[in-house]
Amino acid sequence: MRIYDLIKKKRDGGTHSKEELRFIIDSYVSGNIPDYQISAWLMAVYFQGMSSEETLEFTQALVQSGDQVDLSAIDGVKVDKHSTGGVGDKTSLIVGPIVAACGLKLAKMSGRGLGHTGGTLDKLEAIPGLSTELSEREFIEQVQKIGLAIIGQTADLAPGDKKLYALRDVTATVDSIPLIAGSIMSKKLAAGSDIIVLDVKCGSGAFMKNVKDAVELAQTMVDIGEGAGRKTAALVTDMDRPLGQCIGNAIEITEVIQVLKDEGPEDLRELCFVLSSELLKLANPESGQDYDALVREAVSSGKALDCFAQMVAAQGGDPHITQDISILPQPKYSAEIIAVQDGWISHMDTETCGIASSMLGAGRLKMDDQIQPAAGIRLHRRSGEQVKKGEILAELYTDDETLLAAAKSKLESAYVFTEEKAESKALILARVYAKDNSKTGLDV
Amino acid sequence: MRIYDLIKKKRDGGTHSKEELRFIIDSYVSGNIPDYQISAWLMAVYFQGMSSEETLEFTQALVQSGDQVDLSAIDGVKVDKHSTGGVGDKTSLIVGPIVAACGLKLAKMSGRGLGHTGGTLDKLEAIPGLSTELSEREFIEQVQKIGLAIIGQTADLAPGDKKLYALRDVTATVDSIPLIAGSIMSKKLAAGSDIIVLDVKCGSGAFMKNVKDAVELAQTMVDIGEGAGRKTAALVTDMDRPLGQCIGNAIEITEVIQVLKDEGPEDLRELCFVLSSELLKLANPESGQDYDALVREAVSSGKALDCFAQMVAAQGGDPHITQDISILPQPKYSAEIIAVQDGWISHMDTETCGIASSMLGAGRLKMDDQIQPAAGIRLHRRSGEQVKKGEILAELYTDDETLLAAAKSKLESAYVFTEEKAESKALILARVYAKDNSKTGLDV
Repeated sequence: MRIYDLIKKKRDGGTHSKEELRFIIDSYVSGNIPDYQISAWLMAVYFQGMSSEETLEFTQALVQSGDQVDLSAIDGVKVDKHSTGGVGDKTSLIVGPIVAACGLKLAKMSGRGLGHTGGTLDKLEAIPGLSTELSEREFIEQVQKIGLAIIGQTADLAPGDKKLYALRDVTATVDSIPLIAGSIMSKKLAAGSDIIVLDVKCGSGAFMKNVKDAVELAQTMVDIGEGAGRKTAALVTDMDRPLGQCIGNAIEITEVIQVLKDEGPEDLRELCFVLSSELLKLANPESGQDYDALVREAVSSGKALDCFAQMVAAQGGDPHITQDISILPQPKYSAEIIAVQDGWISHMDTETCGIASSMLGAGRLKMDDQIQPAAGIRLHRRSGEQVKKGEILAELYTDDETLLAAAKSKLESAYVFTEEKAESKALILARVYAKDNSKTGLDV
Repeated sequence: MRIYDLIKKKRDGGTHSKEELRFIIDSYVSGNIPDYQISAWLMAVYFQGMSSEETLEFTQALVQSGDQVDLSAIDGVKVDKHSTGGVGDKTSLIVGPIVAACGLKLAKMSGRGLGHTGGTLDKLEAIPGLSTELSEREFIEQVQKIGLAIIGQTADLAPGDKKLYALRDVTATVDSIPLIAGSIMSKKLAAGSDIIVLDVKCGSGAFMKNVKDAVELAQTMVDIGEGAGRKTAALVTDMDRPLGQCIGNAIEITEVIQVLKDEGPEDLRELCFVLSSELLKLANPESGQDYDALVREAVSSGKALDCFAQMVAAQGGDPHITQDISILPQPKYSAEIIAVQDGWISHMDTETCGIASSMLGAGRLKMDDQIQPAAGIRLHRRSGEQVKKGEILAELYTDDETLLAAAKSKLESAYVFTEEKAESKALILARVYAKDNSKTGLDV
């Protein structure tokens, strides 16, 4: 087999065999094929696409390029949840405790924030004392014992994806649906869960800018998951607005606790409840139970909050934060954005909000940047809401006063005001299931 | 300017500016852009193409990546002729003397053979004593004095093309018409002639397999030439059969001398005469002369043969070869292919003929292979001709007896016989001129 012939085959619209895809990934990871041939192949894939069979085999080849987590020592149904990345997205920290309270086992390896999107690990580590660096044995023991752990990656999961992604990132071959789907799903499959629910973000703050592409990506990932023997479903959700009112790290933990106390903003509650109920449905497809009611009960009873406190304690954090959020890091400086006129907020550019939060110290531009756990933004008024002149629209927090002015001016540029009420969009744009279930459809 | 943005622009169907194309080529040649980004860009160009303006600017950027030959010291009209490479193609060695005899100045830098196609320099060097390694000053002096020189490349012409071609060759991005046209024309423009006639080969022995693509390539190259201020025309010619009866090096020189003596096979004569008359027409577009008659007179009068002898002498070879071809290297061994039945030759696979000649020692598989000047093939019977059982179809020559059997068996596999006369195809398939002349058309 020669890589030249495989580049030409894909260029000419051919379909790769399993063996060919293994050859490409294995030879690339082992250094036997140079970057310049793989980048040409990636661009050919960008134009010619991959069939569902190819996409599955491509993903499996990425999985087999590294370690795979063995969760078999954990009793019960092991579930995972993944978001393609948004602003203010703290859903894993809420969904995990809810489904654990309902008897599922959430064994989640998560990532850090980069650019305008935050990372679950950074948010979790804002809790004093909490560590996300568990060994694989500690991880499995914790999930077995309390039903829940969210940690950083332990093993060398899908190194082929890591190498390929770095190349795609500099050759304009990132935005290809089969390549994105393979990249995400290779890490999910390697992480070992039986059930995966995906949250594909769509809109100005997300990688997928329109619903059609987002649904296609979601379906491609669901097909990979199902093809690899995992029960998989996906939501396509709106990222034309930040999720919830809080953007940052410690400040997002306060909002997590709010929702687990059956309070908090409606959009964040709705998404967390639906993601949780989708996981329960996949775990018990035949039971006919009212999963939405189960989810609401897990929250209203306080069981989910208790699971969260147990996870915090198990990972070395102070579980009293659920009662006293002042234990969390507090920012040294703050500023406010005040409405200068009456009107309606018709739109807030989500990416701009994320960048403003990063500028305050809550995010990273490079992987080795240090973040400030207390930095962030609280949005008092959001898209679709009415504002009156003189009202506080948002508060900005940081430990470095010199960062405030630029971040404030950035955040101000995110707002679009109108004189009349703007139409509000649905948060959940589509639900995507395995094709043979034929349940996929726009949720409008 | 960032190469990432330019890859993305081309990927999305955008049009590059002159500055962008200069940036790509200059940065690549200087080593500031890595291979893996250029190969992704090349694959994007493969899919999205380039406009005529882009193709011209791309070619000019390649020209400016290296030296340009200054032919201004030569009086009169300087002309060049280029073939995209065929089997048995010795036309430059005939056209050069003809147009020199008609008063034009042919200043040609030529190449060596590789794979199944031969190279003009190898053929010329089969003449004992002859050198193709002249300095640029010697080259210009010879053209000025005798109207004609064919030598190897002296200067560093279009190094950007050389580097780019090496990358295209291993990334399946060779067969893109703008990239091929830019590659060929960059070297032609850098070589400095006022007038260029191109011979685009089409068929089983050529890079272009069908007339439509060949015409498109021809038009693209003509447009580049005209856009760069050179008068340019192209023929699209049939390469579904070897050109002439002789394939090799010394043996092709004997056929050159035959045609210059107004003998030789009709197909080779026709193509050489038309190429010559196209050069004369471009040099004197308004004169209304009968260029075909001028060409025939240059040959029948012996003036063209005399020009050839002068060139041979000027480059250190023995001019008596025009009277006594036994001065040329003679092969040690030969073999014959005999017709085993009566019939017609309906087709001869041209590439197979070229490979058989290479296998005898007449060609190279790698650039540093040594060739045997006396090795080659004489085709006694060719496509469209009737054969009788027991007749000699072809003779094979080599200095290495061990090579004969495999080459003979290869050459035998090139023939397709039928019981009835097959329809014969035209040799010149199309003539392509500058668009505003609106003379382009199929010549059928």
